[in-house]
Amino acid sequence: MSFRIEKDTMGEVQVPADKYWGAQTERSRNNFKIGPAASMPHEIVAGFAYLKKAAAYANHELGVLPVEKRDAIAAVCDEILAGKLDDQFPLVIWQTGSGTQSNMNVNEVVANRAQVLAGYKIGEGEPVLKANDDVNKSQSSNDTFPTGMHIAAYKAVAEITIPGVEKLRDTLAKKAEEFKNVVKIGRTHLMDATPLTLGQEISGYVAQLNHGLKALKNTLSHLSELALGGTAVGTGLNTPNGYDVVVAKYIAEFTGLPFVTAENKFEALAAHDAIVETHGALKQLAVSLNKIANDIRMLASGPRSGIGEILIPENEPGSSIMPGKVNPTQCEALTMVAAQVMGNDVAITIGGTQGHYELNVFKPLMAANFLQSARLLGDACVSFEEHCAAGIEPNYKRIKELVDNSLMLVTALNTKIGYYKAAEIAQTAHKNGTTLKEEAVRLGYVTPEDFDAWVKPEEMVGSLK
Amino acid sequence: MSFRIEKDTMGEVQVPADKYWGAQTERSRNNFKIGPAASMPHEIVAGFAYLKKAAAYANHELGVLPVEKRDAIAAVCDEILAGKLDDQFPLVIWQTGSGTQSNMNVNEVVANRAQVLAGYKIGEGEPVLKANDDVNKSQSSNDTFPTGMHIAAYKAVAEITIPGVEKLRDTLAKKAEEFKNVVKIGRTHLMDATPLTLGQEISGYVAQLNHGLKALKNTLSHLSELALGGTAVGTGLNTPNGYDVVVAKYIAEFTGLPFVTAENKFEALAAHDAIVETHGALKQLAVSLNKIANDIRMLASGPRSGIGEILIPENEPGSSIMPGKVNPTQCEALTMVAAQVMGNDVAITIGGTQGHYELNVFKPLMAANFLQSARLLGDACVSFEEHCAAGIEPNYKRIKELVDNSLMLVTALNTKIGYYKAAEIAQTAHKNGTTLKEEAVRLGYVTPEDFDAWVKPEEMVGSLK
Amino acid sequence: MSFRIEKDTMGEVQVPADKYWGAQTERSRNNFKIGPAASMPHEIVAGFAYLKKAAAYANHELGVLPVEKRDAIAAVCDEILAGKLDDQFPLVIWQTGSGTQSNMNVNEVVANRAQVLAGYKIGEGEPVLKANDDVNKSQSSNDTFPTGMHIAAYKAVAEITIPGVEKLRDTLAKKAEEFKNVVKIGRTHLMDATPLTLGQEISGYVAQLNHGLKALKNTLSHLSELALGGTAVGTGLNTPNGYDVVVAKYIAEFTGLPFVTAENKFEALAAHDAIVETHGALKQLAVSLNKIANDIRMLASGPRSGIGEILIPENEPGSSIMPGKVNPTQCEALTMVAAQVMGNDVAITIGGTQGHYELNVFKPLMAANFLQSARLLGDACVSFEEHCAAGIEPNYKRIKELVDNSLMLVTALNTKIGYYKAAEIAQTAHKNGTTLKEEAVRLGYVTPEDFDAWVKPEEMVGSLK
Amino acid sequence: MSFRIEKDTMGEVQVPADKYWGAQTERSRNNFKIGPAASMPHEIVAGFAYLKKAAAYANHELGVLPVEKRDAIAAVCDEILAGKLDDQFPLVIWQTGSGTQSNMNVNEVVANRAQVLAGYKIGEGEPVLKANDDVNKSQSSNDTFPTGMHIAAYKAVAEITIPGVEKLRDTLAKKAEEFKNVVKIGRTHLMDATPLTLGQEISGYVAQLNHGLKALKNTLSHLSELALGGTAVGTGLNTPNGYDVVVAKYIAEFTGLPFVTAENKFEALAAHDAIVETHGALKQLAVSLNKIANDIRMLASGPRSGIGEILIPENEPGSSIMPGKVNPTQCEALTMVAAQVMGNDVAITIGGTQGHYELNVFKPLMAANFLQSARLLGDACVSFEEHCAAGIEPNYKRIKELVDNSLMLVTALNTKIGYYKAAEIAQTAHKNGTTLKEEAVRLGYVTPEDFDAWVKPEEMVGSLK
Repeated sequence: MSFRIEKDTMGEVQVPADKYWGAQTERSRNNFKIGPAASMPHEIVAGFAYLKKAAAYANHELGVLPVEKRDAIAAVCDEILAGKLDDQFPLVIWQTGSGTQSNMNVNEVVANRAQVLAGYKIGEGEPVLKANDDVNKSQSSNDTFPTGMHIAAYKAVAEITIPGVEKLRDTLAKKAEEFKNVVKIGRTHLMDATPLTLGQEISGYVAQLNHGLKALKNTLSHLSELALGGTAVGTGLNTPNGYDVVVAKYIAEFTGLPFVTAENKFEALAAHDAIVETHGALKQLAVSLNKIANDIRMLASGPRSGIGEILIPENEPGSSIMPGKVNPTQCEALTMVAAQVMGNDVAITIGGTQGHYELNVFKPLMAANFLQSARLLGDACVSFEEHCAAGIEPNYKRIKELVDNSLMLVTALNTKIGYYKAAEIAQTAHKNGTTLKEEAVRLGYVTPEDFDAWVKPEEMVGSLK
Repeated sequence: MSFRIEKDTMGEVQVPADKYWGAQTERSRNNFKIGPAASMPHEIVAGFAYLKKAAAYANHELGVLPVEKRDAIAAVCDEILAGKLDDQFPLVIWQTGSGTQSNMNVNEVVANRAQVLAGYKIGEGEPVLKANDDVNKSQSSNDTFPTGMHIAAYKAVAEITIPGVEKLRDTLAKKAEEFKNVVKIGRTHLMDATPLTLGQEISGYVAQLNHGLKALKNTLSHLSELALGGTAVGTGLNTPNGYDVVVAKYIAEFTGLPFVTAENKFEALAAHDAIVETHGALKQLAVSLNKIANDIRMLASGPRSGIGEILIPENEPGSSIMPGKVNPTQCEALTMVAAQVMGNDVAITIGGTQGHYELNVFKPLMAANFLQSARLLGDACVSFEEHCAAGIEPNYKRIKELVDNSLMLVTALNTKIGYYKAAEIAQTAHKNGTTLKEEAVRLGYVTPEDFDAWVKPEEMVGSLK
Repeated sequence: MSFRIEKDTMGEVQVPADKYWGAQTERSRNNFKIGPAASMPHEIVAGFAYLKKAAAYANHELGVLPVEKRDAIAAVCDEILAGKLDDQFPLVIWQTGSGTQSNMNVNEVVANRAQVLAGYKIGEGEPVLKANDDVNKSQSSNDTFPTGMHIAAYKAVAEITIPGVEKLRDTLAKKAEEFKNVVKIGRTHLMDATPLTLGQEISGYVAQLNHGLKALKNTLSHLSELALGGTAVGTGLNTPNGYDVVVAKYIAEFTGLPFVTAENKFEALAAHDAIVETHGALKQLAVSLNKIANDIRMLASGPRSGIGEILIPENEPGSSIMPGKVNPTQCEALTMVAAQVMGNDVAITIGGTQGHYELNVFKPLMAANFLQSARLLGDACVSFEEHCAAGIEPNYKRIKELVDNSLMLVTALNTKIGYYKAAEIAQTAHKNGTTLKEEAVRLGYVTPEDFDAWVKPEEMVGSLK
Repeated sequence: MSFRIEKDTMGEVQVPADKYWGAQTERSRNNFKIGPAASMPHEIVAGFAYLKKAAAYANHELGVLPVEKRDAIAAVCDEILAGKLDDQFPLVIWQTGSGTQSNMNVNEVVANRAQVLAGYKIGEGEPVLKANDDVNKSQSSNDTFPTGMHIAAYKAVAEITIPGVEKLRDTLAKKAEEFKNVVKIGRTHLMDATPLTLGQEISGYVAQLNHGLKALKNTLSHLSELALGGTAVGTGLNTPNGYDVVVAKYIAEFTGLPFVTAENKFEALAAHDAIVETHGALKQLAVSLNKIANDIRMLASGPRSGIGEILIPENEPGSSIMPGKVNPTQCEALTMVAAQVMGNDVAITIGGTQGHYELNVFKPLMAANFLQSARLLGDACVSFEEHCAAGIEPNYKRIKELVDNSLMLVTALNTKIGYYKAAEIAQTAHKNGTTLKEEAVRLGYVTPEDFDAWVKPEEMVGSLK
């Protein structure tokens, strides 16, 4: 492997000759051999590319950067966004908590790549761009990293999580409508209860996801606030007048998302409550999805010795030892994702509490956990929709058998003969293994005709519609 | 101790003669000796009192309950709300997960107390009210408990948490304004950084609390949805037409809070995502408060060997062994509360995931943790405001000494001489224990006059205002 | 209400005349109105009583406290332990994080009560005991609170948690033995699988609890280490030679538990990893108990439309609206307790991380959460054992029906005809709603005689025994 | 891209021609597009390679597998362990919760690769090995996945975590010894307290890590238990007599680690409390490391406006905007790792609670989180040791200045003049900005000579040694 020499304010460092990064990236690569290499999420690098380009435009617009430098910076940022420089970002999550070297990684790659694009060798002649003075102009790691984090987080939520959840929600809504007249037994405490329709049951899931989506969208205004312009400690030192507003405008333009400058930059550097807030909503969705997936696997359990009220797609052989077995694997993937998101929420919560003075230094941790949750939730909803929810069908025979047999239909008699006599009927039928009707009549509380007129499962599901 | 005999559908039970509760309460009391007695939060009982009264009014309005029964129920509910029957609710959190026996506890107390108010002995003659058929009319535990839980939760947030946080926020906002010109050193990574004002620093805390309050208020529309009217499984079986809307209207009227009937009752029984959602916002506030309290105790640390930039009230002797010691005890109470809320969030999250089919049976757990968090946060903010925040004062002498001495003032030179030369000045001064000015001049990068003109802490804090 | 004047180093304070506490307790009571009054767990107060008495004995033995003072201190401590002074400890959890005022509360009560026991009025004449100089002699809050916390925690685990878990474990072991030949269907992924016996299924629960008990006991050696003797920062300043060992010996003697002095006092004050460690084991038990209780309620679900393989005791009417309903309420209480313990674990974990320099100031939070978990787990196991586990019975008819019908018995054919042909048999029977035997023969893979010889549920459960 | 056709019991599937995997792997790849590809940890694949080889040996030894098949299986397993087939395992964590397709992935790769090693094309002629009947012989996913998980987990703890923590512990122990006479101020509640030595302070960290290592090692006996031999539901169906013991013996031999067969296979499939238990100990270490790293960055804070009592290595430029800034970056990486481990603990806890009947289907989630924690902790300790702890040096000048100035030295007077007079001295000196000695003499409580004799920091640190 061949090397070249790069320098920073601490001195010289050997860097692989075929890489664009410089001294600070290399130092960080050597100093933080923690977990797999290059674990810093690529979405963060992309977030940096947006903001570096925006900063170049804002700096130029405000008169502190010549147009050639602006364009040189923008050209490399566009290459990063196009995925052409993916192997130039070797750093890990577990570095300095401000992500300073990830910011410098981008600064160095932009500067060196621009040198090459301009037809020079790296280190040859006067630099086209200086990493700190030009690419990082009017910026600090302390405001760029949270800005990149918000860009990446917002994009992931808007482009992966929300569409995924909505897709699943839409399919469940269709199923709720489709099965709205399929009367089945209800279950509370896992025990037989009064009937409802399969459509009603599923409508509860739809309502959960609708509430979850609303809660998630409620958080986005906080997430749309960008720290950029705060520089080192939030005061905006070394930025031109009006820079924070202008740079946010460019970021909004380049990303197509409604970013604005943060009203209070001190908060935006020292705390990451916006990440805590939006991830709280992701966790709520995880809670909802866990309930939904769990119900579906219980309803589909069997084929012969479980509940078996619904059928779900058979996607793969379920056992390496039990021939013919099929399992609710999409439910399992989704509930594992839910557990991960709940764990990530604690990591993010802890990270969020630990800002000190002017800076929170748990940024990469918070960003990585957030982006994992956002992506897993969106992907898992799509997978679950395609390979499970879309194929849910009622097992009509089983559903009818169970509802007809249920002792809890007795509840319809409460308003006719009172709770106590109704209880006596149900308890007696339970003890004797008989039907409600048999015991109701035998006990003399109801005539057969009245029983048939009063106890109709299909009329016990309708008060709310 | 003397007893009387009460009955339910399972048979006879001995109950203390001086209590109004009946057979089911007594069964639960005996079957669940887990933790301290009577741990079910009283706020839940009060929530039940509101809803039982509202149900009586709705039932009467809709023609299924005579006016005398309505008034008999309402009279006892008013006594409960007035705190006159506090010793009649002996059950614990750790009972059935639907809170069924807490519902029955209220039903039984209302029925028996009404009997006494009507001038009879309990069990004497025809009952004035039947617990199941009258007091619980058009209700199930499955829709009453979540309704009582939402009433209690909303009230706690609206009456304790929000006012407490706002009180603290207002005081901090006053301090931010008051100290807006007190230039001090900034710190990032706990290390000396460029200056800002004490007011700016505190303004970040205010921004955190404002965002947190907004996030909390965003969740209240979900929390305002009431399950009542869903009865056993969400279908509204055994309720008169229009009951759900009417009963919610009465609850809103009696509580003075904007409750509405839940759009989807299946969700409202089977999931408690509204509790998860609002508690997520409480957790966000805990995260913010933890940061704020932690900063304040670090800034106040000393008196001689810490940071010592601010002074906070000395409220009590701080040590049983070290004479004269004073500690940041309000910060400690507040951060302990924050940790509790974060733990409670996990308990609530787990409870929230575990609904099965038509019912979530982690209701008392979720309610108890929520109510503890809401109250602790509100109380702790008030305590912190009164005994700490209101008394924060700058230690001007110390603040000036530290800012004047700081090497990070060199950042002001970046735009004049570039990042590298500035770094050299700072590093040299650090190594030699000298001042920036000495080294800047000695290295020949800046004249003494320029240094004085360029490096002014008070001009380094102002770009954003 | 009448008052008397008490003094501390900060000045005078009005204290209720009928209380023994002094100025510092009163200050804390006024400064920390957070949550319900007197929330500091009484077990902590008892822990203090043990250690104050032990300190008095050690101080006397080492020549720094006269015998009369020793006995005066011990007499009041004995009263505290006998529960005679329960209304003298009004402080809350959410106070200073060192619990300093709870230490002073005990010091003040001991001193003032001793004054009264000696026949004087409080404040009259020369004090019999001085709170700081005598009762707190050779102590600091910083070493007493963690000592009291360890005493309380160890006692709760040894006297409540372990016996409770063992009681449940023993009953389950009895059931495992009793049902060791009851062949039933197994379920994996909630889907029908190969058979096992009900005894084998329950033996898994027993193994979980045995491992959990072992894990819990493994932690007790850390928990048995006492901080006492470290005083203010761990150096043991102001203690006589050998004091730490002697005082631990007395505590061991008075409590009957194997306490020893901590090898490293700096760790014992600045970190509470022992609490984290033991609570980690409590959390593991919560995980196990959650699995067990969840299984039992699923196995008992029905009575007609669930799994219904076991019967559990019917303890109370299960519904205020559905007559005759019975629910697995003990399972619900136990799983709610499990969720609480998991939440408490996070609170304790966060508290545990936040020691600063020589002291962790999340002590009361950690103690309160720990003690709640230890007690809830023990109590809930006892309740579950008495009202549920002890009454578990197989529903033989249902068990037989389900196992005979199962398609997964086909697995027995793997070693005879290979996985692929076995799968074909199972899939065909599933599609056609027929039996395995019918399809096995029809497909020509097995003769009827071989099928009967090879596919015997009762021979599919035995390889391991 | 070219494809070949593979078959399983559900039919034909197109598979990339250059891959060894078969139909089931491909199905899973297509059905679970959740998060990045190939996220299933490679350590799990390696665990499978060990166990497949061991199973082949055990099957041969017990007479159910010919030697050629044994050797064919073993040869491919050795290739996997040598890293030669790393691109053959494309599946993700978020698949079926039993990891069935990851088991089949290994089975398929072993079978097809063996075919090629034997000189055939895949699918050509009679297969050398059948994936289900030979490679998976005497196995199920349900016992292999937990076995692979325990192998991977134990190896990671034994080879990465423990050595990493021990390395850091050893260095800290060296520092504790080296600085055992460096008297410095103590701090409690972040406030000035009585003195101790820097060595004593660091000895507390060593004690934390020693306790943590002991706790971790205590858990390994549970983790050493292997599920293999339980097959589908724990009964050991389709295994030869004695197989479970023999296969564990081979795994122990091949890995060099003390694995044994699980005493109870039902527990070993249905619960993963061993993972919960060991990860609990990892979390405890995270708690300890968080405290240590946090202390170190606070002690090193400055350089001019912080605590500044120790110096730590300057590893990289700390700021892209503030020239000359150096930050405690290793502390930041370590505390971020700690937060991640705490989050992972919740994910694992939740996964651990959710076993149903005979199987826990959160296995891949639990494995992935565990392995991340084990590796991150080990790596981060090594990084922290090398780049931070090894270079800790006292800032003697600063240490002396702070200790000499401290008001808490007054504590030494308690035993001479009592707590109250000592407090008066300290409070007066604090108010007047004077020294203790000045005020002690002025108040007439101590002579100058006595003061000098009694108040010696270096004599205040020694009672415990």
